[in-house]
Amino acid sequence: MNQIKAYGSHSATEELKPLEISRREVLPKDVQIEILYCGVCHSDIHTARSEWGPAKYPVVPGHEIVGRVTAIGSEVQNFKEGDLVGVGCIVDSCRTCPSCGEGLEQYCENGMTGTYNSPDRISGGHTLGGYSEQIVVDEQYVLRIPTNLDISKVAPLLCAGITTWSPLMHWKVKKGHKVGIIGLGGLGHMGIKFARALGAQVVMITTSPEKGKDAKLLGADEVLLSTDAEMMKAHANSFDFLLNTIPVGHQVNPYIQLLKRDKTMVMVGAIEPIDPLHSGLLVTKRRNIAGSLIGGIKETQEMLDFCGEHNILPEVEMINIQNINEAWDRVVKADIKYRFVIDMQSLKD
Amino acid sequence: MNQIKAYGSHSATEELKPLEISRREVLPKDVQIEILYCGVCHSDIHTARSEWGPAKYPVVPGHEIVGRVTAIGSEVQNFKEGDLVGVGCIVDSCRTCPSCGEGLEQYCENGMTGTYNSPDRISGGHTLGGYSEQIVVDEQYVLRIPTNLDISKVAPLLCAGITTWSPLMHWKVKKGHKVGIIGLGGLGHMGIKFARALGAQVVMITTSPEKGKDAKLLGADEVLLSTDAEMMKAHANSFDFLLNTIPVGHQVNPYIQLLKRDKTMVMVGAIEPIDPLHSGLLVTKRRNIAGSLIGGIKETQEMLDFCGEHNILPEVEMINIQNINEAWDRVVKADIKYRFVIDMQSLKD
Repeated sequence: MNQIKAYGSHSATEELKPLEISRREVLPKDVQIEILYCGVCHSDIHTARSEWGPAKYPVVPGHEIVGRVTAIGSEVQNFKEGDLVGVGCIVDSCRTCPSCGEGLEQYCENGMTGTYNSPDRISGGHTLGGYSEQIVVDEQYVLRIPTNLDISKVAPLLCAGITTWSPLMHWKVKKGHKVGIIGLGGLGHMGIKFARALGAQVVMITTSPEKGKDAKLLGADEVLLSTDAEMMKAHANSFDFLLNTIPVGHQVNPYIQLLKRDKTMVMVGAIEPIDPLHSGLLVTKRRNIAGSLIGGIKETQEMLDFCGEHNILPEVEMINIQNINEAWDRVVKADIKYRFVIDMQSLKD
Repeated sequence: MNQIKAYGSHSATEELKPLEISRREVLPKDVQIEILYCGVCHSDIHTARSEWGPAKYPVVPGHEIVGRVTAIGSEVQNFKEGDLVGVGCIVDSCRTCPSCGEGLEQYCENGMTGTYNSPDRISGGHTLGGYSEQIVVDEQYVLRIPTNLDISKVAPLLCAGITTWSPLMHWKVKKGHKVGIIGLGGLGHMGIKFARALGAQVVMITTSPEKGKDAKLLGADEVLLSTDAEMMKAHANSFDFLLNTIPVGHQVNPYIQLLKRDKTMVMVGAIEPIDPLHSGLLVTKRRNIAGSLIGGIKETQEMLDFCGEHNILPEVEMINIQNINEAWDRVVKADIKYRFVIDMQSLKD
């Protein structure tokens, strides 16, 4: 075992503070990664505070990890020391079920191993995430970062990025489609960038004229204020796809009415009950509501490569690890455009 | 204009009684049909009682119509006097929108003309349905009935049948699929028959052991009691398709958990708000909820032809028109296995 520095917490109520944790030795198929940057995701907070059920403590959050390979196991084939790599939300899965076989490890039928707070298939303990100096991950779950990208901004692609990319791919969004992005935060802002790069006509759907302005700066072609009944009516039955990134329960019926026949609204933010859905709105135009969870490893690599080709990066605000508690307060208040990234060099201070 | 006998009502509260109504003369593309049988659909009741918004009175219900051609217009190409024909829920549509172009008249973007209580594109009044001696319909909306079928039982295929057939086709249900039919009534019992004929493994999902027994007689391979938590757990993540025929708002979350990854539950019964849907159940397996409305004319013909080939017929109870009010009371109490058909000869008594 390998003792390293990290930031984490020992209970649902305490603030994050420096911890010492241990990582496994490098196994034959493992890649050891010095963590350079780690994104801050709202899931980190929900988990550490046991808001999604009781967490296993200590919790060391962080599943948007960018770093450099410092050692490899004897059987590693795809990475070498010095490579720039990423780790997202998944560090292992059963590797035998149909979903794993299809490269959809996020839907592993035996349960994917999350990057933190998951039962660890190898150590038997629970996983500890990227708010730390180093991580050791089986090479099959390690991503390659295109070297032309500004690596200080890449980290959020590994959760916010893939979570919005995967449904755009699965529902085959393409040039000419009218795509609505509902909600502008870490996920929504990536949705705008991706949909635009794919050639879609991108409409930001928001309650806030202020966010509408920001969305245009990010690449939205148009803004639809969901509070404006006239505008909503004018856009009824006109969307080919809706990506709903609102992170909490809400009234979905007004959005469903925006969809053309046979089209889909995908939920990627809320993972809780949503207000009563009017079934008639689905029936009368054969509309669909679906959900989508992050994305598989292969798809995540494809997204990173696409970002390399199109120079797509999240908008980030860099912090030192010592400011993490303040940053979390701001995430809870949605006071961030659009993602915090921790400069993990600060952990050495 | 043509004066004929019918049964209908003049207000939301009165019982159905004999009326005299007028039908248009036979236009060049029209088919005049003597109505032999008409099915009784719960929609008839909702409409006549203004439960779906204020109806236009008089209401003459009935959109499961089987009859014989008694006259044709000068330009009619596909029918001749004496042909056995059917009319379902749609008697006209705009014929120019993309949905009409694709043979999906039920989703006509300018509004399909329902068989009763719809604005009539031709007369300018409102349409009057099949609880009547005769109907005049443009040939494009007339179906051909396979002559080998027992015509006294065919009528419910024209609404209950197509409403369940269309989603089975659209979502490509086929041999080997595990298909759940939720709710056993007019729609559900047709769902069982069609899914079985398509080679699926058919599971009746119901709260009632009694209905479970009936479902097996109708062709279900298995019964899943939704009140039995153990059984529901054993069937979790195992269904390729769910056809939800429950006609009122209800809790859908237990059913969603039955779906495999990427599979769909289609609502065909409830056209009202359903209880709060847990978005997490969609997200974690990329599941879908959709709706589906009856079916287009082409598809309805395909269904009738399929029924002819496989000798599929609804289970019906025959009544005389004079007993319609009593029959409606029984429909409201769900005291019918599974569809009333009115012998329209009784209108002459």
